[in-house]
Amino acid sequence: MKTIRYPEKNTWETLLQRPSNDYKKLDETVSIVIEDIRLNGDAAIKKYTLQYDKVSVQDICVSLNEINTAEKKIDAKLKQAIRIAASNIKKFHKAQKQKELVISTMHGVVCRQKSIPIDKVGLYIPGGSAPLFSTVLMLAIPAQIAGCKEIILCTPPSADGSIHPAILYAAKITGVKKVFKAGGIQAIAAMAYGTESIPAVYKIFGPGNQYVTAAKQILSRYKVAIDMPAGPSEVAVMADNSAVPAFVAADLLSQAEHGADSQVILVSTSEKFIEKVNIEMEKQVLLLSRKEIAIKALENSKAILVKNEKEMLELIQRYAPEHLIISTKNHRKIARMITNAGSVFLGNFTPESAGDYASGTNHTLPTNGWARSFSGVNLDSYYKKITFQEITQTGLDKIGPIIELMATAEELTAHANAVKIRRQFKKKDNTL
Amino acid sequence: MKTIRYPEKNTWETLLQRPSNDYKKLDETVSIVIEDIRLNGDAAIKKYTLQYDKVSVQDICVSLNEINTAEKKIDAKLKQAIRIAASNIKKFHKAQKQKELVISTMHGVVCRQKSIPIDKVGLYIPGGSAPLFSTVLMLAIPAQIAGCKEIILCTPPSADGSIHPAILYAAKITGVKKVFKAGGIQAIAAMAYGTESIPAVYKIFGPGNQYVTAAKQILSRYKVAIDMPAGPSEVAVMADNSAVPAFVAADLLSQAEHGADSQVILVSTSEKFIEKVNIEMEKQVLLLSRKEIAIKALENSKAILVKNEKEMLELIQRYAPEHLIISTKNHRKIARMITNAGSVFLGNFTPESAGDYASGTNHTLPTNGWARSFSGVNLDSYYKKITFQEITQTGLDKIGPIIELMATAEELTAHANAVKIRRQFKKKDNTL
Repeated sequence: MKTIRYPEKNTWETLLQRPSNDYKKLDETVSIVIEDIRLNGDAAIKKYTLQYDKVSVQDICVSLNEINTAEKKIDAKLKQAIRIAASNIKKFHKAQKQKELVISTMHGVVCRQKSIPIDKVGLYIPGGSAPLFSTVLMLAIPAQIAGCKEIILCTPPSADGSIHPAILYAAKITGVKKVFKAGGIQAIAAMAYGTESIPAVYKIFGPGNQYVTAAKQILSRYKVAIDMPAGPSEVAVMADNSAVPAFVAADLLSQAEHGADSQVILVSTSEKFIEKVNIEMEKQVLLLSRKEIAIKALENSKAILVKNEKEMLELIQRYAPEHLIISTKNHRKIARMITNAGSVFLGNFTPESAGDYASGTNHTLPTNGWARSFSGVNLDSYYKKITFQEITQTGLDKIGPIIELMATAEELTAHANAVKIRRQFKKKDNTL
Repeated sequence: MKTIRYPEKNTWETLLQRPSNDYKKLDETVSIVIEDIRLNGDAAIKKYTLQYDKVSVQDICVSLNEINTAEKKIDAKLKQAIRIAASNIKKFHKAQKQKELVISTMHGVVCRQKSIPIDKVGLYIPGGSAPLFSTVLMLAIPAQIAGCKEIILCTPPSADGSIHPAILYAAKITGVKKVFKAGGIQAIAAMAYGTESIPAVYKIFGPGNQYVTAAKQILSRYKVAIDMPAGPSEVAVMADNSAVPAFVAADLLSQAEHGADSQVILVSTSEKFIEKVNIEMEKQVLLLSRKEIAIKALENSKAILVKNEKEMLELIQRYAPEHLIISTKNHRKIARMITNAGSVFLGNFTPESAGDYASGTNHTLPTNGWARSFSGVNLDSYYKKITFQEITQTGLDKIGPIIELMATAEELTAHANAVKIRRQFKKKDNTL
């Protein structure tokens, strides 16, 4: 990991730049697959599954039998861990429920705001080397709490045509009704348009590679809502001498092992501390099963030495990291000043992996600077807020003239007329 | 307005189709303007303002003097109306504030969720025939309540280079710090990238024509968040014999006058009622200042006669209207069953224009079926929710093994290690 000592502010923008991604270069490929799924449904899914996942799938829909036998294939201890994590996630997300709001803004004018679950949601779980059952918990539990009527899940099958039992187990205990063997662009397009097997949904959640992200973004323009724009995972650590170098090194590595394109940033006021972390990382990285990936990610990563705490905070705010670990003496004070981050981990005994799996917070978070404007997935992501209003005849008499004046000033006479005609009705004793 | 009698369910999809919009056809033009603004800033804005708005602007930034003299140009009664409307909108949006959530999910594991305002937001107010000062209230008031640090507003200048005083007045009383004379694609691109005059923001709000929408959607892919995908405005009215035909006609017309591409749908169980509404509309439309527009919009509009209330509800749910007026005997009961709509207006004395201007609810709402997955603009649109967590040494001892088991099962050993190394630390009496 390269160390940058006391960078000038005018170099920060370049310094904090994420690896750029030509967002348009995949569009043609992605659009062709989307159109094929729209026109040819299941047959096209099977074709691409054979092409990309190298497996011929007979039935896209995972059978009840597959789901039930999955449970038997998982170690009891892992099942228990998954259940405890699920219970924590449930507790934290359930607490996010919002009551219906009823406000009388004027006499006879009652306005309401009600959170109503999105009827149909689709969850996408990527394939690849590791079975991301934790993401099933993170995406399905809030959907279940919100009460979405249809919760479906797509994930690519492995080489033998099966889905990892831990994914099926996590889906089962979190109320996912239907699981489908479909990955990549084809899964996203199928959930947007619907096929013979896969029902169309109104919002798609979940991470994925650049093809999946491109498909989500293209379809979000005209067909389906998505959780957020996704990019490679990232962590920033703020640390002073109160932090333990071995812990910080372990946290940085746990981000680096995600992928060669992961970003890891350490900001500190102590040069000595940075040196110690680097030494620790060199030791720890050798013990990792994914050490090649971690080493690659560390090549894009930076340790930044800053003058003081104020500068440390300013730099982090500018970066807006997905994950932020604050390991400083006054970590709570600093946390109160953070306004741009996805999820924040405080103190020496709060590793990022706690939030990745089991503490209760969600791990689907905004990357690539989107933490400036986006929330991570939370209970609200599965609702839309609908407003309702009811005005009495007397209420309209009071608010009516205001509406008429404003509508007339905006030159929208029909808007004014909709009030006027009702007020006339009143004046003439309930006839027009 | 064409009447469709008892349509078969298999025809609903076609029947409820919105006028389609080739979302890609403008992309080339829009992308060229975006790139020009990115590279040439203010100079490019001035060029396009001359080209599209036919006015040469010296200073893009509206001066304090212009803002202060604006106030003097507006009728006192209109000012008072604007202030009362603002007060209602403030009341309803302030009530949407959420407290910080603090949940201990396990012993020693504390998770928080905190709503933090987006630092910088940009509001777009379209130009055109009417000065949409009501939209200034709808977009700026929640930004002000949320406490966004930078609130800017762009709107195209009129032919004489000025901004309508009512827009400036609304901006002044709602805490907008800077107003800029820029419209269309150039305004959106400027707020995304920043220019010499216009600061870059993190999220852009507000309606606009198809060019503005395309610019927002293109930039939302990689640069800036947006409120929602926008389309032509629409209303659906559910009415039975308890409704007053003249009121329903006035409501339908108040939607139709928005634009030739507006959509208006009436659903009723009574053929006689539909006839009466049609007769009323023919009378009322002649009195409108924008009658040509309204007549055009009515050509795309439909009155649908259905068999019963159940079918009426089902059809509306399928359509997912931006605005829904329920004028039936049991309007409250029906309202409780609505899950797909932007904003709902109940009973005979609640015209849509109340919500457009003054009742307190927001008028920036999802169109084109997006009400299935999107909320209208609300206080939450100006926040992102950040999670925080802090685990004690004892807490990690409890939750640690769960994390280790799950991380190992996902083959992410560095994630497991970040926990293990901390737990070892504890065991050996605070040394590693």
